[in-house]
Amino acid sequence: MSDNPIPKIVISRLPVYLRALSRMVSKGQLVTSSHELGKALGISSAQIRKDLSHFGEFGKQGTGYQVEFLISQLSQILNLDREWEVAVIGSGDIGHAIARYQGFSDRGFRVSVIFDSDPHKVGSFINGLEVLPSDKIIEVLTQRNIQIAMLAIPAEYAQKVTDTVVEAGVRAILSYAPISLNVPDHVRVSYIDPVTHLQSMTYYLSTEADLMSQPL
Amino acid sequence: MSDNPIPKIVISRLPVYLRALSRMVSKGQLVTSSHELGKALGISSAQIRKDLSHFGEFGKQGTGYQVEFLISQLSQILNLDREWEVAVIGSGDIGHAIARYQGFSDRGFRVSVIFDSDPHKVGSFINGLEVLPSDKIIEVLTQRNIQIAMLAIPAEYAQKVTDTVVEAGVRAILSYAPISLNVPDHVRVSYIDPVTHLQSMTYYLSTEADLMSQPL
Repeated sequence: MSDNPIPKIVISRLPVYLRALSRMVSKGQLVTSSHELGKALGISSAQIRKDLSHFGEFGKQGTGYQVEFLISQLSQILNLDREWEVAVIGSGDIGHAIARYQGFSDRGFRVSVIFDSDPHKVGSFINGLEVLPSDKIIEVLTQRNIQIAMLAIPAEYAQKVTDTVVEAGVRAILSYAPISLNVPDHVRVSYIDPVTHLQSMTYYLSTEADLMSQPL
Repeated sequence: MSDNPIPKIVISRLPVYLRALSRMVSKGQLVTSSHELGKALGISSAQIRKDLSHFGEFGKQGTGYQVEFLISQLSQILNLDREWEVAVIGSGDIGHAIARYQGFSDRGFRVSVIFDSDPHKVGSFINGLEVLPSDKIIEVLTQRNIQIAMLAIPAEYAQKVTDTVVEAGVRAILSYAPISLNVPDHVRVSYIDPVTHLQSMTYYLSTEADLMSQPL
């Protein structure tokens, strides 16, 4: 591995490659190519080869990639050869859906604790996990050395809760709150906001509709 | 506006600017600057000015941007000066959370119909919306001219449902299923997969932990 930092956009594509490869292996496929992978993902095969070349040689010209080998290599690169505990903050609809989501465990993550500030929700159980009171965040996360938090709370509380989980030692935050968060340099933040996705697509929607309605 | 297509990455940042500006206006702020906006978003002010310059002149050197004016311009650019109806496919935990989410309506979208293939769920109500049977997707979407669908279904059904909504005239799909979808060129797809976000962050987590544990 070189000393140059790998571009963030490259890192963000590796999980997508990993996901596609895992689907292949679940269907019993043993070998693939950058061409096939690119076609499945809508990414050029040259891009895939270039992305992977940052990390070494994973296939041979003409024979393609061994799917299971590439999976294990990508998993190592992404530090998924261990299980990461995740804290969920907020037990409303989204927190609920996250805590019950079956898609984490075979991809490296386990929701191991969930918090809410609402006394009516504290003490209830979601998917076998007891909802803990928010004022225990620092104590529990520090004790269990949990480094990843998912925020499923309204925008108005998001910065305050962010400060709290950062104080508790969290170094990666995935936030569903529709607001940009301020964090120290050593903390990563990623956002899930369905509306920004939708709004990026409506830009194209009407443009195309306008074009279609223009007289030829 | 120039005839050159605007880079996709620029378009994807506009909703984030819009979101930050809307927060400012909700707090009564009338004027901002690319510097202030950049600081709130962790984006350089030069990047913001460059992104906006694709679409015209929105502020004056030294006096900054009128927040409400910039909001109305960005809304027009993103075609949000109308309300878009959205169909949700799948009424499990995620579909449920989407259908009940309060954050769509003031940002240009309305979930107006929800489908499920499970006869036990069909006929139930979520947030006042009746869950309709999946075999009505083409009929209902065509009739109501719905062009946006959100998929909240397991990966194994996602491609089949995608083909169905595309047949029904949908031109923008936001999918929560952890699989890459194949669509015709005139259809946009965007994905929400929390695990890919988490995996992009764990790449950095252990790297940093390793660095910290190295003897100095």
